[in-house]
Amino acid sequence: MRCLWLEGGALSSRPDVPEPRPAAGEALLRMRLAGVCATDLELRRGYLPFTGVPGHEVVATVEAAPSAPEWEGRRVVPEINAPCGACPECRAGLPRHCRSRSVLGIAGRDGAFAELLAVPVASLHPLPEGLADEAAVFAEPLAAALEVLEQVHVTPSTRAVVVGAGRLGQLVAQVLALTGCSLAVVARHERQRALLRSRGIEAVEEQDLAPRAADLVVEATGHPSGFDLARRLLRPRGTLVLKSTYAGSLEVDLSALVVDEITLVGSRCGPFGPALSLLERGLVDPTGLVEARYSLDAGLAAFEHATRPGALKVLLRP
Amino acid sequence: MRCLWLEGGALSSRPDVPEPRPAAGEALLRMRLAGVCATDLELRRGYLPFTGVPGHEVVATVEAAPSAPEWEGRRVVPEINAPCGACPECRAGLPRHCRSRSVLGIAGRDGAFAELLAVPVASLHPLPEGLADEAAVFAEPLAAALEVLEQVHVTPSTRAVVVGAGRLGQLVAQVLALTGCSLAVVARHERQRALLRSRGIEAVEEQDLAPRAADLVVEATGHPSGFDLARRLLRPRGTLVLKSTYAGSLEVDLSALVVDEITLVGSRCGPFGPALSLLERGLVDPTGLVEARYSLDAGLAAFEHATRPGALKVLLRP
Repeated sequence: MRCLWLEGGALSSRPDVPEPRPAAGEALLRMRLAGVCATDLELRRGYLPFTGVPGHEVVATVEAAPSAPEWEGRRVVPEINAPCGACPECRAGLPRHCRSRSVLGIAGRDGAFAELLAVPVASLHPLPEGLADEAAVFAEPLAAALEVLEQVHVTPSTRAVVVGAGRLGQLVAQVLALTGCSLAVVARHERQRALLRSRGIEAVEEQDLAPRAADLVVEATGHPSGFDLARRLLRPRGTLVLKSTYAGSLEVDLSALVVDEITLVGSRCGPFGPALSLLERGLVDPTGLVEARYSLDAGLAAFEHATRPGALKVLLRP
Repeated sequence: MRCLWLEGGALSSRPDVPEPRPAAGEALLRMRLAGVCATDLELRRGYLPFTGVPGHEVVATVEAAPSAPEWEGRRVVPEINAPCGACPECRAGLPRHCRSRSVLGIAGRDGAFAELLAVPVASLHPLPEGLADEAAVFAEPLAAALEVLEQVHVTPSTRAVVVGAGRLGQLVAQVLALTGCSLAVVARHERQRALLRSRGIEAVEEQDLAPRAADLVVEATGHPSGFDLARRLLRPRGTLVLKSTYAGSLEVDLSALVVDEITLVGSRCGPFGPALSLLERGLVDPTGLVEARYSLDAGLAAFEHATRPGALKVLLRP
């Protein structure tokens, strides 16, 4: 089959990789639409030593599901994490933190930038008829955005700031806006600002914001540089949610976190069910983020497009 | 008056510093007993550029209080932070985070390693008769230990670990033990371990603990090295409370915090009222921590004693 292939940090387009063979309890999916995410770009920079097919944001049709044939032909979104169900984390109700999980297109499992992919049947979410592929393909990053609300109690009185208005920042902003909180989003690019304004969300530049005034700052820039800005905007006793993952570590003044009694909350993957529900009801509309569509054969060009400064969502079709 | 004096990171014993003159709303206190804290030692290492009399853990007698003469002659403990009452933080109910606060013996206000000190009357806590000076002198660090419970909901089912069994770690351990949680304290020195065991608290060495198993880890070593150990012991989605302040910053893998969805909670000063209440009722007994008593004139020797590895509380008398 045709796919993109990552090896030693180099991405290539391959015409003849063997088709995946679903293991027991797995389904074979035919990719309909897949999204390029910052993590895919970071994988290429060496964030994790993954070899295989990248891609974890995907809408697909179930091609075969030997153990659960009722799924065949259905349009689905698979979870990004495939847990073991038996380790201490799984038993503690934290399957997304399973210590032997595979992660679609990131660790231990080939991903979605391919004609076909194999995932556990248990990871499938069926899609309602009215939900378009171009909305449903955002289920995974929207779930990740919703994780902020799973972890932090955001109230209508919360003064919140999102730093970074790229692919993930836009979704975090839409989700926070639903709480009725006071919300400003630091956006560097006019296209990002226009998109936020079209959803009734205040787009600002860094210098528009008072320092040490936000109750909650979500750092979603995808870059190490976002941390310092987020920190400056936060009030004492405030909460800083970290959404960015990137290669390398950062010098952090932990004593200053103690003095200001800051709470840092690392935030990764979230719940798919509520994400699909919000998409279906139109309470979150990510389709304005779609910036370009490429065929799988033009996958390398799609990656280059996604790395442009300010680029929003780039999609891949089979 | 006689006092210890910190200037340019050098500590000296001075016989003839002018007595403090209380400003409007302030009281003049005569020191009865004062404790040496890790922060005092860090100040000498350049953690903050303070010049003046250090010392912020103190029991005193009110010598004069022109605006509130009913306080005169009373035995008191003063708060460490003196807030302005007018800034956004004070108005938001966060006086300990007042942006123009003075901090006794740390920033903007001479401290307690002196015969006399001046503090706002509003910062005074009267001491009940039955509470000995050697217990009450722990009010400030015990309040700081209680701040963990103000910030984190510790339940009887929480698996908690305290890393560091020095002055602050012992108090944090005693406070956590009151919740009925499962508790282990990483202690390097036999004296520390014996003291914990005498309170019915499990003292362990680093290698006794399973990695990634604790729900809550409190880092109270006072050293940058404590962070890595605390991080290793913490389960995914766990909470790491930072109590240490020291000069300099630390390389932190923030992406790993995101992947494991760790919450870091900076924790500084806490509530004096509950601290005094626990001391009065004997639910916390810090007196076993007292390792040595020095006169103010021997203050330099007291500091040297306090820097010994594993040293617990060193007290200063007038």
